[in-house]
Amino acid sequence: MNFMSDNVSGAAPAILQALLDANADPAPSYGHDRLTARLQDSLRTLFDHPAMVSLPVATGTAANAIALACLCPPWGTIYCHEQSHVHVDECGAPEMHTGGAKLVPLPGADGKLSCDVLSDALARARKGFVHHQQPAVLSLTQATEAGRSYTPDETAALCAIAKRHGLKVHMDGARFANAIAHWGCAPEDATWRAGVDALCFGATKNGALGAEAILFFNPADAEQAGYRRKRSGHLFSKMRFLSAQLDAYARDDLWLRLARRANAAAHRLADGLAGLPGARLVYPVEANEVFIDLPLKIIEGLEAADAAFYRWDGTVVRLVTSWNAEDAVMDRFINLANHLARHDQRST
Amino acid sequence: MNFMSDNVSGAAPAILQALLDANADPAPSYGHDRLTARLQDSLRTLFDHPAMVSLPVATGTAANAIALACLCPPWGTIYCHEQSHVHVDECGAPEMHTGGAKLVPLPGADGKLSCDVLSDALARARKGFVHHQQPAVLSLTQATEAGRSYTPDETAALCAIAKRHGLKVHMDGARFANAIAHWGCAPEDATWRAGVDALCFGATKNGALGAEAILFFNPADAEQAGYRRKRSGHLFSKMRFLSAQLDAYARDDLWLRLARRANAAAHRLADGLAGLPGARLVYPVEANEVFIDLPLKIIEGLEAADAAFYRWDGTVVRLVTSWNAEDAVMDRFINLANHLARHDQRST
Amino acid sequence: MNFMSDNVSGAAPAILQALLDANADPAPSYGHDRLTARLQDSLRTLFDHPAMVSLPVATGTAANAIALACLCPPWGTIYCHEQSHVHVDECGAPEMHTGGAKLVPLPGADGKLSCDVLSDALARARKGFVHHQQPAVLSLTQATEAGRSYTPDETAALCAIAKRHGLKVHMDGARFANAIAHWGCAPEDATWRAGVDALCFGATKNGALGAEAILFFNPADAEQAGYRRKRSGHLFSKMRFLSAQLDAYARDDLWLRLARRANAAAHRLADGLAGLPGARLVYPVEANEVFIDLPLKIIEGLEAADAAFYRWDGTVVRLVTSWNAEDAVMDRFINLANHLARHDQRST
Amino acid sequence: MNFMSDNVSGAAPAILQALLDANADPAPSYGHDRLTARLQDSLRTLFDHPAMVSLPVATGTAANAIALACLCPPWGTIYCHEQSHVHVDECGAPEMHTGGAKLVPLPGADGKLSCDVLSDALARARKGFVHHQQPAVLSLTQATEAGRSYTPDETAALCAIAKRHGLKVHMDGARFANAIAHWGCAPEDATWRAGVDALCFGATKNGALGAEAILFFNPADAEQAGYRRKRSGHLFSKMRFLSAQLDAYARDDLWLRLARRANAAAHRLADGLAGLPGARLVYPVEANEVFIDLPLKIIEGLEAADAAFYRWDGTVVRLVTSWNAEDAVMDRFINLANHLARHDQRST
Repeated sequence: MNFMSDNVSGAAPAILQALLDANADPAPSYGHDRLTARLQDSLRTLFDHPAMVSLPVATGTAANAIALACLCPPWGTIYCHEQSHVHVDECGAPEMHTGGAKLVPLPGADGKLSCDVLSDALARARKGFVHHQQPAVLSLTQATEAGRSYTPDETAALCAIAKRHGLKVHMDGARFANAIAHWGCAPEDATWRAGVDALCFGATKNGALGAEAILFFNPADAEQAGYRRKRSGHLFSKMRFLSAQLDAYARDDLWLRLARRANAAAHRLADGLAGLPGARLVYPVEANEVFIDLPLKIIEGLEAADAAFYRWDGTVVRLVTSWNAEDAVMDRFINLANHLARHDQRST
Repeated sequence: MNFMSDNVSGAAPAILQALLDANADPAPSYGHDRLTARLQDSLRTLFDHPAMVSLPVATGTAANAIALACLCPPWGTIYCHEQSHVHVDECGAPEMHTGGAKLVPLPGADGKLSCDVLSDALARARKGFVHHQQPAVLSLTQATEAGRSYTPDETAALCAIAKRHGLKVHMDGARFANAIAHWGCAPEDATWRAGVDALCFGATKNGALGAEAILFFNPADAEQAGYRRKRSGHLFSKMRFLSAQLDAYARDDLWLRLARRANAAAHRLADGLAGLPGARLVYPVEANEVFIDLPLKIIEGLEAADAAFYRWDGTVVRLVTSWNAEDAVMDRFINLANHLARHDQRST
Repeated sequence: MNFMSDNVSGAAPAILQALLDANADPAPSYGHDRLTARLQDSLRTLFDHPAMVSLPVATGTAANAIALACLCPPWGTIYCHEQSHVHVDECGAPEMHTGGAKLVPLPGADGKLSCDVLSDALARARKGFVHHQQPAVLSLTQATEAGRSYTPDETAALCAIAKRHGLKVHMDGARFANAIAHWGCAPEDATWRAGVDALCFGATKNGALGAEAILFFNPADAEQAGYRRKRSGHLFSKMRFLSAQLDAYARDDLWLRLARRANAAAHRLADGLAGLPGARLVYPVEANEVFIDLPLKIIEGLEAADAAFYRWDGTVVRLVTSWNAEDAVMDRFINLANHLARHDQRST
Repeated sequence: MNFMSDNVSGAAPAILQALLDANADPAPSYGHDRLTARLQDSLRTLFDHPAMVSLPVATGTAANAIALACLCPPWGTIYCHEQSHVHVDECGAPEMHTGGAKLVPLPGADGKLSCDVLSDALARARKGFVHHQQPAVLSLTQATEAGRSYTPDETAALCAIAKRHGLKVHMDGARFANAIAHWGCAPEDATWRAGVDALCFGATKNGALGAEAILFFNPADAEQAGYRRKRSGHLFSKMRFLSAQLDAYARDDLWLRLARRANAAAHRLADGLAGLPGARLVYPVEANEVFIDLPLKIIEGLEAADAAFYRWDGTVVRLVTSWNAEDAVMDRFINLANHLARHDQRST
């Protein structure tokens, strides 16, 4: 019963198999192999964008930082949510890779940015004023740190504001699959058709061993990317082992199937827990995360039973479900919580 | 017959098996798992150094750049061979990670630095002169770009000079296993007992999918390493998949067994080709690389037969052998070369 | 009637004379001259600190950025007021010079940080958590962007919190003279005796042509400073021309005499304007800046009469007085405002 | 008799006077003053280039580093002479400001680069090869570290090669005036008409207190310059004091008149010393520096008489003359050397 993060889960069988297959024969290094070429095609097909440029890397932090560095000069500002991973949880990776850009954290309910907040921030920016870092990038997190996600229309509205002010749009898609699976929309509608310039298409959390693809929807934005990837140490010599993971992930809807299973498990948990006395679902479930306020006794009882999860804030806990979630495990957790709730009430 | 690089080979069965085993159960992320702890122990045992600090990363460029950044301030100089990978082939990764250190390329036969050249360079340095970048690190490549390697005594002599001038010593060990397998020495004698402060212990070229360990023999040098790894994007969430590779590699002499096989293949090639008319072995074989000057007709004939290798310089070619080299393949290549040589002579 | 900034004023006669004197004879370059040595002594005397290390630079941005880079690693965080110059008005200079540190803007009335806000922010920081940039520096602005200033006791209380959390303390003293002149305290009591580690001792705004001294009260903190100054381009070959300005400034209380005159002018303005109908002094005057809310008609009338000042926010204007302020000019401005007020009332 | 450097001299009277004049009235800060606008006009006229963009800064290191950062990406290489100031004497300023570019030192007699050496270096560069930093800039030093200088034709030939390979051309003109005064050519013919993209037009060594202008001959290259200047700390609030120096320098041929006097003094020294027994002029005098090999007895005798100069290499000394050189001082030095030579011969 480990709900600490989707990072605790391992790799999906189809992805492991692709890795084993890739190992069968020698292959050119540094991405000059057939699998990396095939991956480019797979991703272009998946996103319905024949000119898109993709670069595999191994971590989400690398994907975000390299993408942002391609979109933002050292004197640029990156507008992001105040809880966003790029601002809070990457120990300054965007600052390092961009050469010192500034992240501007913006507030917003449920980890989401609103058009009003973004417009206000941009209205305060002084373009061309040499004393101030200059507006350069809007960074959206899909799904958000609160387990919610943007509809294509919401993304498009935010991108429209960004574009009016000359900003590029970056999307941290560490849980992109979960968001798309939730809305059931086409990935192209949620990204470039809505105005996103670069997507970090996450796979690690959703069934890969460690693989993410940076997608540039405008080839010109990708011109620096190869050099930035190499000099930051993220160009794999045996690239095919990244490409194999991502190619399997992108094919046959695997990414969506894995995400749907994780999302379903989150809903199962939310449905099973929300009715407990004293429980309160904090955010709507729009991906594979459940934020729920529980009585302390229940929290402690679950922990005592070796259930692992994150104490988010006070008595709000975060439960993250994975691509390999099993109904039986969810139900065991739910039953245990119910049992604790009954026990708790009786003892009161 | 692919001798382009040891990067073209895949992963060794024992390493793949370790990866599959690591996938069996969920595990804490970001290195808080049992495998990563076990790896630390394995490496401490292997290097006979109970306080050593190890950090797994996925690429050699990352290992080198992060290690150098921990040893060298932005205003420092890194003395290295003029052909060294850190200077020539990393697109400025050390410059990026250190925040702008300067690499000072030094000449030396066979990719090796000599005490005289190093002493001369350090004698010219002006310590404390604020206009000049300051001597900070000696970087050695083991084995060198020319397929030669340093004996423990040679390393110790170079380190002694470095230490007298207050420098730290970094060793790029992308092919460390091949060098150690060649000399048959203990890894600790070739590193910290000789004065090396940080070793990038390579596994990728020698049978891993993508895994290297940065080893700091002085724990104080490692204090920044965790932050530098994270902010450069090299902290894996599913770290156990790096640790599994490295742990299998470090155990039961796997690293040495793989390297010995690659080295033996290089010797087999060198022995089989050196006697060809017009052939000349350029460097002694002290690892898994053969540099040999061959008649152009032979080179072209081999290439026409789909043998892959690197044209190093004029008619000098580089042949790199791998952990999974097969005698039959070596012999096929040698026989073909012999056949071409006979044909060539007849036609002259 | 130019109250745009204290930057619009020129250089004080004594400082110009020192510059002319310094020009009489040739002198060693890069700070090896007698004037620079004398300046070091003057500053040590002034701050009653015989081991203090001082480095002249030409701009406040340089002073702040170099000082911060000496105190903060690339993965560090710098806590500062959300209106502080280092965060808002230096186009990312701290980010550039530190190699990517993160500034954490904190709220606070009148541009001042409070112990509560600082304590809360530090309580939220997770020391040693590799995903987060690490608390490294508290940066105080003296006087603040709102023209207020910290008493020695307030500084000491903030420094005490910072020290308990292992932070270094930087003070941006672009208007340090004005703050000290206001409180009439000893400069050492307002700095190192209160816990400040590095002070950017500003002179440019207060009568120099362009000169600031970075003061390190702990010599160990200054070890990197010479290299950081040089490689950022801030080591003057004809250093004596910076030192001459600063030495004159530090001697015979010139810095205080100039600041007192500017402060007195600010008080004269505040006193003369605060009683106008519809006027409201926004902040207490504790340096050489007046923030006052005025009826729009008066603002427009003053501007029409070629009075120059900054419209801060809505109908709040900022009036900055200089070291060479003349009572007659203040009175002319006050009289004009009074005239406009009477006219305004009559016309309503 | 101080020939250590042209940095030891002070400021020229006309430049000091301009500074005093600039101090008469308050003026807008950060370059929005009339003097800075006038300077832009003066420089455009001087270089016969109506679209040229100029930015005053205070030091040569700043000028070079900011200019290079505008021309070179972090993964770029800057080709320069192995003795060049940017490579040897700036403690890594170009590396810092560019974000980690690599300087490639090239050999060449008399501090000058030749077309052959440049062509060879560029032929070895692998454009688009992601493992190597990419050719980006040619940096020329005018006059060179050996006191020689490039003719317009030599500059044009080097620039032509650079342009064929897509490089930008930077000229470090710390002693540009001395070179132009030597050849008597038009400054535009020695720069943009020959293919130079950015010139650091030095004034500090030639009679300013501390002022250099970065000149961009292609306005597009200057787009980043304002932000780079600000965030590196080189935007002066009281900019008019830099502009005043530079404007006086650029007007009425002052820069050439000062340089001619320094050059003439160098020739007087060279002529007066070259005939001494055992003396050998090492390089032709093409600016304001004399490199001469002298008998050790003479060197020691001159030093004993309080003459100051730099021992360059063994018994080669460097004598640098200044804008305020006086014939009487030159002659005193020459006579002393002659006296020492006669004494030396008699005693042998």
